[in-house]
Amino acid sequence: MAISDLIDQTINAITPLDEAAMAEARARQDQLTKPLGSLGRLEELSIRLAGIFGQGTPKIGKKAVILAAGDHGVVSEGISAYPQDVTPAMVMNFLGGGASINVLAGHAGAEIVVIDAGVAADLPEHPQLRSAKVGKGTDNIAVGPAMSREQAIQCLEIGIETAREQIAAGADLLACGDMGIGNTTPSSAITSVVTGTATDITTGRGTGLDDAGLAHKATVVKKAIDVNKPDPKDGLDVLMKVGGFEIGVLAGVYLGAAAGNRPVVVDGFISGAAALIAHAIAPDAAHSFVASHQSVEPGHRISLSHMGLEPLLDLGMRLGEGSGAALAMHIVEASAKCLSDMTTFAEAGVSEKIEDDEAAS
Amino acid sequence: MAISDLIDQTINAITPLDEAAMAEARARQDQLTKPLGSLGRLEELSIRLAGIFGQGTPKIGKKAVILAAGDHGVVSEGISAYPQDVTPAMVMNFLGGGASINVLAGHAGAEIVVIDAGVAADLPEHPQLRSAKVGKGTDNIAVGPAMSREQAIQCLEIGIETAREQIAAGADLLACGDMGIGNTTPSSAITSVVTGTATDITTGRGTGLDDAGLAHKATVVKKAIDVNKPDPKDGLDVLMKVGGFEIGVLAGVYLGAAAGNRPVVVDGFISGAAALIAHAIAPDAAHSFVASHQSVEPGHRISLSHMGLEPLLDLGMRLGEGSGAALAMHIVEASAKCLSDMTTFAEAGVSEKIEDDEAAS
Repeated sequence: MAISDLIDQTINAITPLDEAAMAEARARQDQLTKPLGSLGRLEELSIRLAGIFGQGTPKIGKKAVILAAGDHGVVSEGISAYPQDVTPAMVMNFLGGGASINVLAGHAGAEIVVIDAGVAADLPEHPQLRSAKVGKGTDNIAVGPAMSREQAIQCLEIGIETAREQIAAGADLLACGDMGIGNTTPSSAITSVVTGTATDITTGRGTGLDDAGLAHKATVVKKAIDVNKPDPKDGLDVLMKVGGFEIGVLAGVYLGAAAGNRPVVVDGFISGAAALIAHAIAPDAAHSFVASHQSVEPGHRISLSHMGLEPLLDLGMRLGEGSGAALAMHIVEASAKCLSDMTTFAEAGVSEKIEDDEAAS
Repeated sequence: MAISDLIDQTINAITPLDEAAMAEARARQDQLTKPLGSLGRLEELSIRLAGIFGQGTPKIGKKAVILAAGDHGVVSEGISAYPQDVTPAMVMNFLGGGASINVLAGHAGAEIVVIDAGVAADLPEHPQLRSAKVGKGTDNIAVGPAMSREQAIQCLEIGIETAREQIAAGADLLACGDMGIGNTTPSSAITSVVTGTATDITTGRGTGLDDAGLAHKATVVKKAIDVNKPDPKDGLDVLMKVGGFEIGVLAGVYLGAAAGNRPVVVDGFISGAAALIAHAIAPDAAHSFVASHQSVEPGHRISLSHMGLEPLLDLGMRLGEGSGAALAMHIVEASAKCLSDMTTFAEAGVSEKIEDDEAAS
């Protein structure tokens, strides 16, 4: 089904992993100065990177965290432990350099691109803020769709364009981060719809709800699905009915990264819900996704599993902003560097393994 | 029991964690611009770092991987899949920059200190090689002790001095790596003795033994313990009877790091066995240990659990050299940076959490 020229073109550009490049990477891994397979998931990841890049020994140069912010009409249902004015305040904190993602992206050597996808307040102009407001917060999904179909398309296009620009500017590794008070609620709805999981399983405490708050939130998530009846097979429909502006932009980033043959790191639950939208729109896109960490949010495991992803880290994090993704960028880069920079047994003059019968004698 | 002046002095300098510094770090974490506890283990780790350093907001500047190499007489029992000449060849590979640890330490921004603790071959002089050969490989532990008591003391002293020098030169974070064909065999013996675990549970495939090789190796480990009868309460006795030169040096590094109030990252199974020796000698030393990753070697989990440590990573690695420790250094540093560099709610002008009754309304 045609969506828009840019989106259709992007979907068409998404290909399966490059098997020849992966075979080349696998052969090289087996010649490097280490016992066969001893780098474990670093080896597997490096081989997948080769398949994404379409290069036997991919090199990761520039890195960028794309951090999209948006507000959610569903906060009027009382589903968040924080007030909505935290969204613009945290955007200003990102621009000021004091948030977790500033520290962790800086530590990873990654730039941050902050996008106002739909914050419900006017934000001052800032050289590091990309203003792309699709609306001033979504509508309340507990009573109707989050946004119009045109707005959902606009979100995806902003994300695709941002990924394209970053890749054109030399970014070899992207990561997705989110900010938006209330956004675990649409994320639970998306995760339930796309993976076919009950809402009480995909609903968690977000930034810190108590038991009563959690129970109330689960009923709101269920209501959002019952009222809107999104089509699980139609990612655009899910985004429009129970999504969010920042979630739609991130879904576009995933599509753009996959179409540009670059890996994109999935952060936590919201970032994962955006990935589910992208995956529903173009299943092959998930080959380019790298799951950074296992969030504490219960729906995250279901979301990653649906896309066939296994997280690199499990550190009990539940912050969002791309914080887990930024932390995992170091590991992704490490896997590529081991593949490209280690010497082979032949180059180093190191003996290979003794034949098994000799070793056991 | 007195061992030597340097070792006794080091043991006496090891103190419990600084509770006041930890309380200061904990209070700061709760004011940073993020939901309470949302950085999960990064928060816990940062608080422990504060306790190790004795500073509320510790900063990690220089980092060093201390990589000790040694050979093992027990290779004559046919317990390794690689020939002994791989030990000196890999040391030359470390010095040439082509091994996994070179790539991963470089990626972490850490220097590597390579120590010849007891390689069974003459190594050429090299500006980056510290020659501290305690012997040309240990004796065969399947028939008698690995080394003399004097040699065991010498190993610990070399490690302590190395840690001291690194800390004096500004290293705030150390990591331990090992190289030595055959060294999972003494590591299994150490792990069994110190933790009181059966040898068939602590014995693994090392660099890649088949089933027959694994069964044979387990009988060799059991024999080493039966012949030598090391005293589980006496770390020096365990080292001398079923240890190794590089293992003893690393045990000294752990003691020296703990005495110098600096965190030291434990790598995999061999590095963990060295940590068990240090822990047996001075239990409080373990407060300074940070477990980097869960090795594939089955005894590693038992070893970490005995010291109350939980690994940060679980990536199916089994390479040694400090590779997992180097990878985890990034996370350790990230935890300290989040604590020191993020802004507080008050500084950023961000609203704190709504009272629970309001959120749930």
